[in-house]
Amino acid sequence: MNKVNLSEKLSLIKDFWNPHIAGELNGQMVKLVKFKGPFVWHHHDNEDELFLVVKGSFVMEFRDKNVQINEGEFIIVPRGVEHRPNAPEEVEVVLFEPATTLNTGNTRNELTREKLEHI
Amino acid sequence: MNKVNLSEKLSLIKDFWNPHIAGELNGQMVKLVKFKGPFVWHHHDNEDELFLVVKGSFVMEFRDKNVQINEGEFIIVPRGVEHRPNAPEEVEVVLFEPATTLNTGNTRNELTREKLEHI
Repeated sequence: MNKVNLSEKLSLIKDFWNPHIAGELNGQMVKLVKFKGPFVWHHHDNEDELFLVVKGSFVMEFRDKNVQINEGEFIIVPRGVEHRPNAPEEVEVVLFEPATTLNTGNTRNELTREKLEHI
Repeated sequence: MNKVNLSEKLSLIKDFWNPHIAGELNGQMVKLVKFKGPFVWHHHDNEDELFLVVKGSFVMEFRDKNVQINEGEFIIVPRGVEHRPNAPEEVEVVLFEPATTLNTGNTRNELTREKLEHI
């Protein structure tokens, strides 16, 4: 039952698109991640996914619209919905999602992270 | 799939200890709440609970220690652990917890909120 300081933990992350586990509760995980550039189009068959911006901003691209998520804002992407995060500049993000969630969803490629580190 | 601005939504909440539902995913809820003063001692039999401070700070009291949670920090209180949030000054908080969670846990009193409003 120690507290976690988001900015302190995020400052330890040096690479992009590599979620780190900062907490776990009720089978869900709190993950910290830095985005930069465009990710890959994907969806999650069984998991809804929450993205909360701690610092900076990014665009959540959907097939029919784009939504810019700024500092202090979150968006929930329901299971099954194709999406692609795209960050013109570096952005710090908190993810809330089930422990089972794979970062690239239904796809596997060089950005896939099978085993996440704790931070 | 609309984004939610935490500060904007929190500015609409005028009372204390009354969580409002700002999002739902995977059977979990994102709730926004303002604390002021001491709450009641309680625990949750089946739910772990996350508290993230958006603005201000509060003290999470446990039977054996106190932890001050500041802006940009979170704490996870595991199920079964007695706790009491105590906010000397008004504080804005995000809760992440199962949809079934009752705010006063194993107790019922004038602070219990059975039905939560969406915001």
